[in-house]
This record gives sequence, C-alpha cells and structure tokens, in this order.
Amino acid sequence: MCTHEPPRRPPVVVLAPDKFAGSLSAQAACAAMASGLARVWPGGEVRSRPMADGGEGTLDVLLASAGSRAARHVRTVRGAGGQPTAVPYGVIDSPDGAIAIVEVARIVGIADAAGMAVPVGARSTQGVGELLRALLDDGMRRFVVGLGGSSTNDGGAGVLESLGAALLDSDGARVAASPSALGRIERVDVTALDRRLESCEVTLLTDVDVPLSGPYGATALFGPRKGVAEDELARFDEALARFADRTESALGRHAAARPGAGAAGGLGFALQLLGGTYRSGAEAVADLVGLDAALQGAEWLITGEGRSDAQTLTGKAPLVVARRARSAGVPATLIPGAIDSAVLPDLGRHFAGCFALPAGPTTGAASIAQAGALLADRVEQAARLWDAARFRP
Amino acid sequence: MCTHEPPRRPPVVVLAPDKFAGSLSAQAACAAMASGLARVWPGGEVRSRPMADGGEGTLDVLLASAGSRAARHVRTVRGAGGQPTAVPYGVIDSPDGAIAIVEVARIVGIADAAGMAVPVGARSTQGVGELLRALLDDGMRRFVVGLGGSSTNDGGAGVLESLGAALLDSDGARVAASPSALGRIERVDVTALDRRLESCEVTLLTDVDVPLSGPYGATALFGPRKGVAEDELARFDEALARFADRTESALGRHAAARPGAGAAGGLGFALQLLGGTYRSGAEAVADLVGLDAALQGAEWLITGEGRSDAQTLTGKAPLVVARRARSAGVPATLIPGAIDSAVLPDLGRHFAGCFALPAGPTTGAASIAQAGALLADRVEQAARLWDAARFRP
Repeated sequence: MCTHEPPRRPPVVVLAPDKFAGSLSAQAACAAMASGLARVWPGGEVRSRPMADGGEGTLDVLLASAGSRAARHVRTVRGAGGQPTAVPYGVIDSPDGAIAIVEVARIVGIADAAGMAVPVGARSTQGVGELLRALLDDGMRRFVVGLGGSSTNDGGAGVLESLGAALLDSDGARVAASPSALGRIERVDVTALDRRLESCEVTLLTDVDVPLSGPYGATALFGPRKGVAEDELARFDEALARFADRTESALGRHAAARPGAGAAGGLGFALQLLGGTYRSGAEAVADLVGLDAALQGAEWLITGEGRSDAQTLTGKAPLVVARRARSAGVPATLIPGAIDSAVLPDLGRHFAGCFALPAGPTTGAASIAQAGALLADRVEQAARLWDAARFRP
Repeated sequence: MCTHEPPRRPPVVVLAPDKFAGSLSAQAACAAMASGLARVWPGGEVRSRPMADGGEGTLDVLLASAGSRAARHVRTVRGAGGQPTAVPYGVIDSPDGAIAIVEVARIVGIADAAGMAVPVGARSTQGVGELLRALLDDGMRRFVVGLGGSSTNDGGAGVLESLGAALLDSDGARVAASPSALGRIERVDVTALDRRLESCEVTLLTDVDVPLSGPYGATALFGPRKGVAEDELARFDEALARFADRTESALGRHAAARPGAGAAGGLGFALQLLGGTYRSGAEAVADLVGLDAALQGAEWLITGEGRSDAQTLTGKAPLVVARRARSAGVPATLIPGAIDSAVLPDLGRHFAGCFALPAGPTTGAASIAQAGALLADRVEQAARLWDAARFRP
C-alpha cells in the first residue's frame, strides 16, 4: 500500500553551531542542542560538528574533531603587551604530515586582560612569531593559523621581527614592532629573516576578507574596538601602509591588497607575504571537521551563534554551514542567542526557520547566563514542530 | 510509484489565538499570523478563528464570528463606580431565538479608569443588572455573559439590586450593593426581584472555576489586583460570605460553593443563583466560533496569548484549542508573547512547539509595541520549519 507518510523514526540530525560568544563554546552549544533533541527523540542519531571561523574557539574545535590524532601542547611566548604567556596550540597527525594548529586569539587575544591593559599602539604580534619559529624548529611544515579575535593592529610586524627581520628608521636604528613606531620605518632588513615558512603549507583561517589598509582596511573596520581613538585612525592606518610598503619592497612581492590582509590587525598581510594562503575560516573548519560527510544521510541540521545579524550574511559559520547543508539536500535551522529582526527576511532565504533564545522579555545578561538551558529548550521546541510536521499524515 | 513524500501544497492552517493582553486583540493576532504564513505559502488556505475565554475581547470575537447574523448595540448603564457608561453588547440571530452577548469587562472592567478611580469597596455590578433587565424588557430570553476582567468584588449584589432585590440591615434599612456595605446585611428581600432570568437560558463564560469565598475564593485570589488591601482581604471575604448566606436563604437555594461562583468578583455566584449555567469560557467560545468544523481537513493549528505560564495549563484558551486540535488529529503550535520556561516541559505535552515573540534580549514594553511584527515573523519562521520538515524527502 502506498501512503504519503514517511516512516516514523527519529531523523538523523547534524548539530553544527559556532560558539555563542560570551556564553557557550561551540562544543557546549552542541551538548545543549543534543539534550534538547533527546527530550523529543531519545536515542535518535545526533552528529555533533562544533564549528569555528578561525577566531576564538578554533583550536578547541579542531583538536576535538581530530580526536586521538590530536595532541594539545603549551608554550610560553610573549602576549600582545609583551608579558610572558603560556599559550596552547595543537598538533594533528595526518598521512601527509603533522599539522600545527595555532589560534592567534589565544596568544594576542582581545579577551586577554594583560594585553588589553597595554595601549594598542604598543601591542605586538611578536609572540605569534615566536611560536611559529619554535614550531619550525620542531620540524613542523604544515600550519593552520586561526586569525581573528586579536587585540593587535601591527600588520604582523611583530611576527616578522620574531622571525628575524629588522625594522629600521631613517638613521638605520631599530624601531619597535608595534603600531606607534611603524610610522617611522624607512627600511626593512630581511637579511636574517627565517624563510622556512615560504616552503611550508600555511593556511590562514579568517572570516575577514578586507585588505590591509584604506577605508575598508584593518584599522578603519576593527581599530576602534581594539582601542584606536577616532582621531588616531588615520595615523594608525598610514603606519600600516608604510610598514607594508617597505616590507613588500624588501621581499619583492605584494600582499597588502589581498583579501584577508586586514585580518587580525594586519597579521593576515604578514603571513600571506610569508607564503600563507587565505581561506574562509568557516569553510576551512567545515572541511576539517568533516561537515559534508556528516550531512550524508542526515535529515536536518541545526546551527547557531551568539547573535545573527547582517554580519552573518557575509559568510559567518552558520551561513557556510547552511550552504553545505543545502548542497546536501538537508534543511538547516538557525537558533542563535539573538536575531536582528531587520535581516530576518534575508536569513529566511538560507534557513528553515530562525528562532532566538529568549522565552520572553529579558536582559542580555540573563539570556547569556541561561544560554545553555534556553538553547536546549529552543531546540526541543523546534524538534517538536519538526516531528509534528514530518510525521502527522 | 510509491514515495514517502506528501504532496507539496500549502497546508490548511487554522489560526486560533486568544488576545495578546496589552498589545493585540485576537483578531489582530490572527491578521499578524496570517501575514507571516503568506510569506511562506502565498495563497495557502488560512482559517482564522480568533478566540476568547469570557473575559476582555469575548464580545468582539463572538460578534465577528457570527458575521451578518450579529448586530452590535450600545446602552448606557452605570459603570463600576456609578458613572453613566455607554457599553456595547451584541445580539446574534439563531434558529432557536436571538442570543444576547454581554461582556462584563465592558461594563465594570478592570481597564476602565473611571471605575478604577473609585475604591474597590464602593464598586458595584449594578450596571450589569441594568443591562440584563433592559434586555429582558426587549424580549431576550437567551444570554451569553462573559465574566472575567471585572474590577468589582461585590458578589453580584449590584445585579440583584438592579433586578429588584433589597439588601437590608438589622434595622430594615437598605444598604449599598458594594463590598464595604455587604458586611452589614441582615436580610435580603426578594419580593420585588425580577425572576424572568430563571426561565431564560443564561450561559456564563469564565476561565475561573473557584467558589465564591474562602481561601480559594474570589477575594483571596483576585482581590489584591482589584485594589483590596492585604489587611482587608478577610473582611471583604466575610462580607461576600454573609451576603451569599442571606441571599441563598431568601431564595431557598445555593450557589456559593459552585465552580465559577468566584468569577468576576462573585458575579458568578449571583448569576448562577438566578439560574445561569457556568461553562469554561474558552470551551464555549470554541463552540460558538466553530473551531471543530474549522479543524476538519486542516493540517496545522497555531494559537497564542500574551503570556504562557502555569495559568495556561489550567485551561486557558490555547490549551482548550490544543485539545480540540488533538481530537481532530491536527498538531497545534503555541506562539505567545512570552513563555515561563518553568512550564515548558508541561506545555510540550500539549503543543507541537512553543515559541515566544522576542528576537533577542528586549523589554516588555518594546515587545508589546512590536507585537504584531514579531508575531508575523515568528509564525513565518515556524512555517519555514514546518515546510522543510514536511516536504523534504
């Protein structure tokens, strides 16, 4: 007999949220989502693929995804303000050689109080260079570097200096590898530069595709949130441009205009100049965590993030995930902490339903404090609706 | 060929929300819901059955439902504070005789500023009695009286007085038909009482099933919100009990202990004593608006209300609607202004998904101000999820 009723069994659900900034890691979001699903479909198959975009949380997501092939290490390097900082990084075994996972947010992150206590003009990415050099010394030749979430705006000058370049003023004296000094650079001496990165595979993960400087550059877009005063934006931007010009001259190649050069306060510029390849962080993470494989045979995907707004539509993790799901014929539902109602019509073209966390009028602080419970509730309710729509004749 | 895919056509959707108190009438809620559905399924069949529970909005809902069989009238009677008030009521033609629709909230309502300006001890339901007497004089013999939303706590003494009863003290002098005087009643003289209601069909609609007095009576549960001070609750309650005792003695029958006697500040007592029959307001309205017929052949029902909490589970309109839907094999989704998360597990047993209006952290005032737009958005998103779950293979 032919009926139009699909077989009544729990759907295979892929959970692929980004972190909920300020409240839940991507892994914690997956756990909350899974607990909500279990209330409706106990024993149903859930495939958790916590996501990241190259920023905060990328290291944890990639290490967890690699399971027993991954090892977590700690090394002490300089933080953004120069203070010695024990930073985590990872190494993942792979048939093509070990891959080092570096998360810039864990070294010079905007959430690091000690670094943020130093004025932005004095912050530097030297510690990132120190870690890369140490990893090269360890024999690493494949790198995944998560950009994003940095407190620095030095164009990656700190990395270049740590790798052996000398930043010189018109008197041939060394200047500091931090924004306040970059405007005095006359020449970059790359004689002693460690060039091993050039023969390495360096993948740069970021959701920022802007060039180094100019009206859509690192300083203009992200300087203010790092502490660059409104009336200093032009000076900071000119300093980055000058540093880039002198560095490009010294190396005989260009990177300042490339997409992603403006990521992590211009660190994307320096690392591309040294041979790194820019990739959409969310796309790369989706590949690394095996999202496409998880979607095979799945019936529903749920994603989320702290706040969904116009930025989401520019290619944040939930949008990347939704595109992958669509390609696989799997509907994707978005459950973020909050939604900017103005972009809901656009979100509606990508998602099979968007639902925010609050159960009623509430403060941001309360919503963040209860995020896990609210997320489980919201996923449960979405699953109840799914179940009713799917299985009632 | 047999497939498990249902035919891809918009589902027939029944919209049966209660009012969103403070923001949307039930009709406005239906309109907002319908606009959200139209974004997903343009041209889809929508059956709007705005709901009420006997309180505010009942008159409008019933008149709209009756269409051309209904007429709206206005008569001037006394409001709760004694002020002349033009109150609306309705008459619906029916094969068994015209039905008068009276909404107590429109006569002595808690939203009426003039009535609320008078102390609760001086408020009276006299105007309700005046309207009933006038309707009897007009020849009406069938009445539907929506209780609920009243500002009074007089046990219906005002109605009895308007219908001809005399409330007398120990000296045989008349006392006022308001709470402050009821404690002095020694005897009720029903010699001149208009007894025509006893041979009428009087249906009392309310969502309050408590008795007249005592710890779960009208005064204990609803007195404080009407302005009865904490230290006067006992005195008000004793006055109601005394009034009821003397009135029951005079008429030789009882009603004070019946469910619903405590509705509308005890008006439920007086009207039951005069021959009225108590019914769940939402159940009666569901019958009057033809909800069961609307559910025939429907695939989904959406309901809502201002706030869903433990009260909802005691039989408010959304729960009544969900039960009717379940009997018809139609899943019901709840989209209220806010949800008390503590009762979500219980709500989950009745509804195929519960989603509140806010798109993120917000104030109650902002949520109320944008209720129509938020409701349309939320219904749209639920419909997108429904569509994906229903129609993807």
